[in-house]
Amino acid sequence: MLIDIKKAVDILKNHDNFYVLTHVNPDGDTLGSGYALCGALQRMGKKAKVLCADTIPEKFHYMFKAVEEQEFEAETIVAVDAADPKLLGENKRFEKDIILCIDHHVSNLKYAQNTLLDVNSAAAAEIIYDVINALGVKFDKRLSACLYTGIATDTGCFKYSNTSPRTHRIAAELMEYGFNAGKINYVMFDLKSKSTIMLEQQLLQDIGFYCDGKIAVAVLTTEMINAAQLSENDDFGGISSIPRQIEGVEVGITIRQKGENHFKASVRTSGLVDASELCKRFGGGGHPRAAGCELDGEAQTVRQLMVDVVTEILHSKGLLE
Amino acid sequence: MLIDIKKAVDILKNHDNFYVLTHVNPDGDTLGSGYALCGALQRMGKKAKVLCADTIPEKFHYMFKAVEEQEFEAETIVAVDAADPKLLGENKRFEKDIILCIDHHVSNLKYAQNTLLDVNSAAAAEIIYDVINALGVKFDKRLSACLYTGIATDTGCFKYSNTSPRTHRIAAELMEYGFNAGKINYVMFDLKSKSTIMLEQQLLQDIGFYCDGKIAVAVLTTEMINAAQLSENDDFGGISSIPRQIEGVEVGITIRQKGENHFKASVRTSGLVDASELCKRFGGGGHPRAAGCELDGEAQTVRQLMVDVVTEILHSKGLLE
Repeated sequence: MLIDIKKAVDILKNHDNFYVLTHVNPDGDTLGSGYALCGALQRMGKKAKVLCADTIPEKFHYMFKAVEEQEFEAETIVAVDAADPKLLGENKRFEKDIILCIDHHVSNLKYAQNTLLDVNSAAAAEIIYDVINALGVKFDKRLSACLYTGIATDTGCFKYSNTSPRTHRIAAELMEYGFNAGKINYVMFDLKSKSTIMLEQQLLQDIGFYCDGKIAVAVLTTEMINAAQLSENDDFGGISSIPRQIEGVEVGITIRQKGENHFKASVRTSGLVDASELCKRFGGGGHPRAAGCELDGEAQTVRQLMVDVVTEILHSKGLLE
Repeated sequence: MLIDIKKAVDILKNHDNFYVLTHVNPDGDTLGSGYALCGALQRMGKKAKVLCADTIPEKFHYMFKAVEEQEFEAETIVAVDAADPKLLGENKRFEKDIILCIDHHVSNLKYAQNTLLDVNSAAAAEIIYDVINALGVKFDKRLSACLYTGIATDTGCFKYSNTSPRTHRIAAELMEYGFNAGKINYVMFDLKSKSTIMLEQQLLQDIGFYCDGKIAVAVLTTEMINAAQLSENDDFGGISSIPRQIEGVEVGITIRQKGENHFKASVRTSGLVDASELCKRFGGGGHPRAAGCELDGEAQTVRQLMVDVVTEILHSKGLLE
């Protein structure tokens, strides 16, 4: 059931002993939303912890300071920024008990008993900001740093078209609490490991252009990933956005190998093509300009498959001559 | 003389026939400030035009829509975002007549008859925002797009530590006028030509690390630049910031060839080494974290020269083992 913020706040107020579930391959928004919500519940005297099925990358560990470690039996299960129970990884085992999901994905499957969904929010963290205010919890430096991270990472640091005046107003309010936003942004957006730099180089070498340069596709095979001293499940930073940044490219696709004959495609578009619709055809989903899906086959087959489907879409929209 | 905003507004109200001067190598802030101020003066029924001594890059041409072309004799000279009359290029000829300079650089030389200086503003455009409000001119989509561009470009799209809560609040107010911020940001920050992508690849291949990875240096020779179908004086986008973004790098240097045996070095530092001090040794200058200088010699000699000097500085600061 879709609910409003008042109902969500009632649920949070009337329960205790929370497990707050994030999605796998955790990013700044799912973690920032999770830790801020968890910290807010603790500040109300409740027990709460964040559960993520994957290892949390070190660059997000400062969020741990927003919460206290508590031992308790789970009574109330909440999910944040997770559109599909599959994205909970092993925590999908809680699926039947998820009383509340707070999300901003248009692709949300409404799998929870109650869903607070706002697809106009650039980040789940924007919704959590309103929830924490409605709960009457006072913000501090640590809660604010978590939510700021969520908002900054889901908007490409306020760069993407999902950024609204409200996004900036929330960022302004959060920054008043005095955390080091410049440092967070440096770590999230600028800092690159030598491995990532090597992989970027590989990607630039591999990029192929199709349909008069409107489609750009790069494949990162396990071999290339290992050559850069990375492994298949590492965070490759903003590498997925590179193909789409090239002049004239409407659809940029980065395909990375996840196993033998198994690949994950990240799709970025200029907005003329709906990335979420495109990825749905392969059982994936996401946002209109940024989405993902998984594919089986050999590298070149998978690449050609994506190119064919995008070509067909560009054709059907009259975007090819 | 340093003046406050009230005095600046008096000057603008009591004069007419304005030339608004920007600095050379024009960026988003000097142009956005110039065009917004000029447009605001025109909306007050005054005559005004922007004067830039250099060609204005095409990506900023949308700002032209914020003003009408008017023919008139200059009566009142104003400079924006220009800390030093040298930075006005050939418009330095107006130096003696500059009645008002609006700027945010701590290095401002107070060369104008009146200077409205706010070093806490991330961009000159933040100050112009207050000025236009104080003038009582109503904002619209076009004026707002100019000021937004100034603020976004001078803060790395709200990423750098100069971004304040006020910066975000102004961005929020401006965005309410409905220009396409996502598109502006895409052009300013993400869009890369295939040539730039090729050059980036060359740079990543050439990068050398010294002093246990604390120094990273890349040289872009004329040959490499030409291979990417660019020429020595083209804008290479954010390429100079790449070496410094690599994990562990304290000093990142991009050296680009400008002529036979002539090179320009762009230095970026984490803050532990003063880039401006370093470049001063070679007759250059700039900011503590971003500076530049020119050097003569062969590519490898110039590279080694920079490495030696930086090594010596790191040594003297006890930053090497």
